[in-house]
Amino acid sequence: MNYRFYNAKILTMREAAFLEGELWVQDDKILYVGEGGDMAAICQKLSIENILWDREIDCEGNLLMPGFKNAHTHSAMTFLRSYADDLPLQDWLTKQIFPMEAKLDGEMIYHLTKLAVLEYLTSGITAVFDMYLTPETTAKACVEMGMRCVQVSGTSGQENFEPSLRQMEERYHTLNEMDPLHSYFIGFHAEYTCSKALLEQVAAMAHKYQAPVFTHLCETKAEVEGCKERYGISPVKLLDSLGMFDYGGGGYHCVWMDEDDMEIFQRRGLSVVTNPASNAKLASGIAPISDYLKRKINVAIGTDGPASNNCLDMFREMFLVTGLAKLREKDASAVDAWEVLKMATVNGSKAMNLPETDVLEAGKQADLIMIDLHQPNMQPMNNIPKNLVYSGSKQNVKMTMIRGKILYESGQFTNAYDVEEIYRKANEIVDSLR
Amino acid sequence: MNYRFYNAKILTMREAAFLEGELWVQDDKILYVGEGGDMAAICQKLSIENILWDREIDCEGNLLMPGFKNAHTHSAMTFLRSYADDLPLQDWLTKQIFPMEAKLDGEMIYHLTKLAVLEYLTSGITAVFDMYLTPETTAKACVEMGMRCVQVSGTSGQENFEPSLRQMEERYHTLNEMDPLHSYFIGFHAEYTCSKALLEQVAAMAHKYQAPVFTHLCETKAEVEGCKERYGISPVKLLDSLGMFDYGGGGYHCVWMDEDDMEIFQRRGLSVVTNPASNAKLASGIAPISDYLKRKINVAIGTDGPASNNCLDMFREMFLVTGLAKLREKDASAVDAWEVLKMATVNGSKAMNLPETDVLEAGKQADLIMIDLHQPNMQPMNNIPKNLVYSGSKQNVKMTMIRGKILYESGQFTNAYDVEEIYRKANEIVDSLR
Repeated sequence: MNYRFYNAKILTMREAAFLEGELWVQDDKILYVGEGGDMAAICQKLSIENILWDREIDCEGNLLMPGFKNAHTHSAMTFLRSYADDLPLQDWLTKQIFPMEAKLDGEMIYHLTKLAVLEYLTSGITAVFDMYLTPETTAKACVEMGMRCVQVSGTSGQENFEPSLRQMEERYHTLNEMDPLHSYFIGFHAEYTCSKALLEQVAAMAHKYQAPVFTHLCETKAEVEGCKERYGISPVKLLDSLGMFDYGGGGYHCVWMDEDDMEIFQRRGLSVVTNPASNAKLASGIAPISDYLKRKINVAIGTDGPASNNCLDMFREMFLVTGLAKLREKDASAVDAWEVLKMATVNGSKAMNLPETDVLEAGKQADLIMIDLHQPNMQPMNNIPKNLVYSGSKQNVKMTMIRGKILYESGQFTNAYDVEEIYRKANEIVDSLR
Repeated sequence: MNYRFYNAKILTMREAAFLEGELWVQDDKILYVGEGGDMAAICQKLSIENILWDREIDCEGNLLMPGFKNAHTHSAMTFLRSYADDLPLQDWLTKQIFPMEAKLDGEMIYHLTKLAVLEYLTSGITAVFDMYLTPETTAKACVEMGMRCVQVSGTSGQENFEPSLRQMEERYHTLNEMDPLHSYFIGFHAEYTCSKALLEQVAAMAHKYQAPVFTHLCETKAEVEGCKERYGISPVKLLDSLGMFDYGGGGYHCVWMDEDDMEIFQRRGLSVVTNPASNAKLASGIAPISDYLKRKINVAIGTDGPASNNCLDMFREMFLVTGLAKLREKDASAVDAWEVLKMATVNGSKAMNLPETDVLEAGKQADLIMIDLHQPNMQPMNNIPKNLVYSGSKQNVKMTMIRGKILYESGQFTNAYDVEEIYRKANEIVDSLR
């Protein structure tokens, strides 16, 4: 399908300045971003024939920008949304989350992931970095629905971990080749759920494929203290000493990192994926985002799973990234809105190895959203990036396009989804698990 | 107009349990809340004739609940949204906010308030507690648009304050009698912007009318320290010693209160209005909400003005109230979602002296909202109150009704508003003030 968006404000995210003009999409890619005017002349400049448009969309002065990259989530955990909130962390995990998860199967995960995808689309999220139990069915759900998905292995175990390691290696091939919308990273659940022998094997695999590695890292103070008791050093130092990050990667959460840990992240070019709503809701703490930015560490943003958040809303996360940093630093100037907007888009693409989705320009993938500026929370237009970060909400998402396909528009999902059936199925699964 | 809402889930907020059934509105009031069934039988039970409905609305299983009460705001500050963010607090106030405010007039405030009202409606806010410079034009804007508004005097001054005191007393009469949608409280800006003589005069007026008093209170650490330098005691103690709270009232923000201050609030039955987004964005701190709840102090929620927030979104505030409390207490069980929902509705009504708007039951004012449960962020329905607080967003507000009038429905404002003209005017005012 070929789309012409005209009468648009365009925030390419290559630079902070706005463009007023047009954006053309041909099949899965952006063909043109620039001023409007005489179409024939633009075509000539691009050395292309005149295009037959499937749709020409008057943006009415609304904003086009790259879609948000949700750089850490567990999509299928929708089934646990609001199931066990307001509990102490250990009770939450051991009495509520783990027993319910133990009963899940791949087909349930397929259906529960679909529910999450609907929500991603309402929040302008065009790619997710997912870790969960049955990557094949998560991939199936995402690809069927048109959601771009990067998965990471959540391998764990203290012994007898060979089968799950073999599975990770198989998936590294199969799930990286299944569809242009899908890719797969080497990874593991967390230091505290893996034996040292397993960690060494994961590092060996990273070396074999010269691949980056991601994991839950320094989420809670107790996790870091536990690692120091076990190994005498911090989780970041331990993993680095095993060669885990020799080909890049990074950590989810990263609330409790010290100067030495940050130095490793800086030196190795690793990514921090921050999850402020989850870290607040589970009382884990506030990540030192200002320190990461000072060191020019790549910071991306994730919602974490809906069991701990509970929603999948990048607008809430964006406000929290800067709001919590301001509280932590006791400084209202901490973490500028523009930095936050980069985290939610460009930096996410970098962490997820999706450079073809980072900015709006010719040749990039058509993963983009339209923001409704004709809403009261976007007025007056003193500063659109600040409006987005401090005032934006899901209600401003007028359209979500992934790989050149419009999947959500004006509050409606594309007809390909049976939305009520997805809801019904999710509730049925929850009932069966109780 | 007479409305029949049927096929609804109803959260009356009188109790946590849901009702499945119908809600009838006659003119400005709720006529019936209860099970559906034979209309004639219900009418007979109510001892009324059969009703002619202007509209019968199939709620399709969606949720009716009382509208949110935004218990602290400065509506007209929309003009400063995103104008001067990410600055240290003092620079923000003295270099950006005050010089712009000095140029405002009543007509501008009228137009800028209208922009805020549109946003309130998108967030399911059915009443606001406003403090700003020209209460007459704020009242005019709200009443014209159908927004319920309680205003509070923002009197301040170190000397020559007599004219503004006289004005407050006049307004206490005129603005309490102008319209059923409007009322007016005695109040003052803050301890640190008033001389002791002025504070004494305000307290005398509270005694004269046996009226409650509200003010900005204990917002920043510096404010409390300044008061202690000036008077040797905390702002709460100082005001109480002047008899300021002999007839009730309370404070906005209340981030930095000690045990003695809380004891005064508890003993006098005062209300805390918490403003978590503003307190985060301006790095003021996290209010001790758990301590207030332990003492059974009435806690309500406000957005504060859009210069410091920057949006007027009760969903974001609700998440922040509990998320920040959890961080502060290092306890994921701090401040249960149900408590937060009460703060945003019933407790707000109490603080604002609007008991006729607190719950959904026969005889109360028809100030209510419909929440779209057919959105992915409300599924599965493990726990609807927790879904609302942890996962809800403006996008879930399907309808906002105030005093029996539907002002916002399915993303559209009532036809009485010229929305684009309100935006145009706000931008024009901003341009004229630069």
